[in-house]
Amino acid sequence: MYDLIIIGLGPGGYEAALTALRKGLKIAIVEKDKLGGNCLNRACIPTKYFWTGAHNIEKLNILKNYGISFNGEANIDYSIAWENKEKAIGFLRKSLANLLKTKKVPVYKGNGRIIDKNKVKITNKDNAEEIIEGKNIIISTGSIPSSVGNIVPDGEYIITTEDYMDNLKSLPEKVLVIGGGVAGCELSYIMNKYGVKVYIVELMDRLLPSKNISPEISKYLLRKFKKLGITTFFNTTLEDYKIKNEKIEVKLSNGESLEVDKILLSVGRKPNSDVDEIGIEKDGKGFIKVNEYLQTNFENIYAVGDVINSPMLAHVAQYEAKIAMENILNNKKVSPDYSLIPFATFTAYEIATVGLNEEQAKEKGIDTISGYFPYTYNEKAVDESQTEGFIRLIFNKSDKTIIGGYIVGLGASELIHEISLMIKNRFTAKEVHEYIYFHPSLSEIFVYASYDIAVGKLF
Amino acid sequence: MYDLIIIGLGPGGYEAALTALRKGLKIAIVEKDKLGGNCLNRACIPTKYFWTGAHNIEKLNILKNYGISFNGEANIDYSIAWENKEKAIGFLRKSLANLLKTKKVPVYKGNGRIIDKNKVKITNKDNAEEIIEGKNIIISTGSIPSSVGNIVPDGEYIITTEDYMDNLKSLPEKVLVIGGGVAGCELSYIMNKYGVKVYIVELMDRLLPSKNISPEISKYLLRKFKKLGITTFFNTTLEDYKIKNEKIEVKLSNGESLEVDKILLSVGRKPNSDVDEIGIEKDGKGFIKVNEYLQTNFENIYAVGDVINSPMLAHVAQYEAKIAMENILNNKKVSPDYSLIPFATFTAYEIATVGLNEEQAKEKGIDTISGYFPYTYNEKAVDESQTEGFIRLIFNKSDKTIIGGYIVGLGASELIHEISLMIKNRFTAKEVHEYIYFHPSLSEIFVYASYDIAVGKLF
Repeated sequence: MYDLIIIGLGPGGYEAALTALRKGLKIAIVEKDKLGGNCLNRACIPTKYFWTGAHNIEKLNILKNYGISFNGEANIDYSIAWENKEKAIGFLRKSLANLLKTKKVPVYKGNGRIIDKNKVKITNKDNAEEIIEGKNIIISTGSIPSSVGNIVPDGEYIITTEDYMDNLKSLPEKVLVIGGGVAGCELSYIMNKYGVKVYIVELMDRLLPSKNISPEISKYLLRKFKKLGITTFFNTTLEDYKIKNEKIEVKLSNGESLEVDKILLSVGRKPNSDVDEIGIEKDGKGFIKVNEYLQTNFENIYAVGDVINSPMLAHVAQYEAKIAMENILNNKKVSPDYSLIPFATFTAYEIATVGLNEEQAKEKGIDTISGYFPYTYNEKAVDESQTEGFIRLIFNKSDKTIIGGYIVGLGASELIHEISLMIKNRFTAKEVHEYIYFHPSLSEIFVYASYDIAVGKLF
Repeated sequence: MYDLIIIGLGPGGYEAALTALRKGLKIAIVEKDKLGGNCLNRACIPTKYFWTGAHNIEKLNILKNYGISFNGEANIDYSIAWENKEKAIGFLRKSLANLLKTKKVPVYKGNGRIIDKNKVKITNKDNAEEIIEGKNIIISTGSIPSSVGNIVPDGEYIITTEDYMDNLKSLPEKVLVIGGGVAGCELSYIMNKYGVKVYIVELMDRLLPSKNISPEISKYLLRKFKKLGITTFFNTTLEDYKIKNEKIEVKLSNGESLEVDKILLSVGRKPNSDVDEIGIEKDGKGFIKVNEYLQTNFENIYAVGDVINSPMLAHVAQYEAKIAMENILNNKKVSPDYSLIPFATFTAYEIATVGLNEEQAKEKGIDTISGYFPYTYNEKAVDESQTEGFIRLIFNKSDKTIIGGYIVGLGASELIHEISLMIKNRFTAKEVHEYIYFHPSLSEIFVYASYDIAVGKLF
């Protein structure tokens, strides 16, 4: 009998395992695919690897500022980046495997199904079955790509983001991306910088159409996409497509016709929750239902990450895993607090948000006042020759405390934690403004974005 | 009669001016040299410009990971970097000048001397004199390079860091740097990456010999310097030198002889405090004495920045300027709090510290426990192919609250503010560990550096 069985070793499962091992629990892991889950193998980590490449291609033109030049143009070879992406995630996967091996943690390779509140049946790829027992179970089985309407992925012409990461070793000439959300915008930028002509079709009227992304961000990103030559179609769907002579003829709802080599589907993800035969409750969308302590309707069975209805982000899964572990280990139960989840995406810009934006605050009936500052005059950004971008900080109008903020530009995905910590600290605009930041640093954008509110306007 | 006269328009003076203008004060500025002070023209900003170049040269070898290659080797031309450095700081200087012009702020070009508690006499370069009157005065005249013993800068063979930034348009073959402190280590790295053979002579037994720099950091940096081919001599001084055939023959106290093209003096700075004829009090080292409200012995005359005895950092000057302005504007006086000043330096690594290190805590009688994590396993660092470096977080042993930390590696100068805000928040190791950071981000090093203390050891 194990103390804990973890089904699915993505970010949530991994975090739970690390904590359990440190607490001396006897654990077992069930994983049907590669260690590290979708995040490590097909999403967060490989996209940021490719993003580094894309961003470096974009930055080649600033090297000359520093007296660095080459004879002739750069040679760009995506297939080399792909191989090295494999090496990078292979290294991380191996570190994980080595750790589990050193700690003698059994990893059951196969599909895990909960057949009793303390039993998991594992079926491996040869259909051999094994049953293991545990006092507690954590379900961290993640999510799988959604599809829409008549568009059926075939892994060849119509591919999902997972197909992309698993198999696309070289890039075609033209790609139509269905969905201008996070994954769509990230892969569009990567493909664009590696030489692909990219078209995006988006059902809504903007890029990154999500509540936590202010329209101001979508507009700023769109301007850049246009400059990069990425073509976007909004309020549009794919009406029909036909595969002919290794090309896809596409008809859009706005009347446009295109010929592309591949269609990339990035229309969101759905929970991978078909994991039991004991009646674990799910909601209408298939998410496993959990209570405030992340317990399912069986109190010894917890669920964390994409498989429950909370933000589908790796760090949310990790956070929930810590909460679940605390509840498994202690009698006094704790609940997750989702108010300060940083969000970031790496596309033509690094974009990050935390807390409430003005639209979200308005919905909650909070009057806001906001401060803005462009990177143009930030000395560190000038030194790095990367002055595109801006910051907006959102304050409660009545007491001037900071309630949210977003950053578009260099370092956004790290700087966002400073905003998060300032919200946590209940900083007023004056405190944000007077806090001591290193000079010169990108963090000084906080000083200037809060100046008007903290001290008064200059003009 | 002005409301405020600001003598010296470096970071302190500039910050005071910005706040004063927002508060509607009638101000005048006295500046004998370029707007922006030493920081903008000869220190913080140009060094980070050159650092970006040096770092980009170092990073050229990772481009291939992402399928980016060139025909042949890179051509490195320092003089182009120098010209563009001039353009970058010129742009920032001009922004500053335009702002002052738009706000119709008189800028008196010349040497300012306080001749009465409300009067400043300005002598311009033609020896013409002018006297202006102000209700309040802020002295923000900064500092000038120190020299040592028998080594007399001549601007040609023996140069200061200011000579370097003002005049060194191309680099010689061999340079001896006197002083392995911040400026010495920053310029040594820059010159090394731009092809210079660099020797460092340091009186103490390590690089960056300062209380806020843990020996662990000095050691880590030294290992890198050796790898880069920078030669260091510790516990050593320059005994003698002779200029002969456009070369300098140098004799060191350890018996070594060298032949170099230039000697760069970077042995610290001293206050530029000879600014009055009314008996403003100074200490034994020439720093202007101020009380807890940053007032001199004349209550309407304040002093901020390098000219007073507080850490010689641009952001400290800016912070002090805000405090001085608050005290000028309000009856209720406030005092600066120096406990959370971030420090950063850009040399072969980005290095940053805040709060107390273990050595400093011990001196204060605080028992500590610390957590460490190398960049090696940080997924974002792996994605960026920049995995050198580490973090150490220092906690109070008794209650496990965070009291300090330092980072060596990518993003250190920004991430350090997160530590600062966590100290401000009085976070325990558990709170540092459970805080939600974006995945993947460099900020996740905080999760892992606090794991042992928050949850328990893995091995």
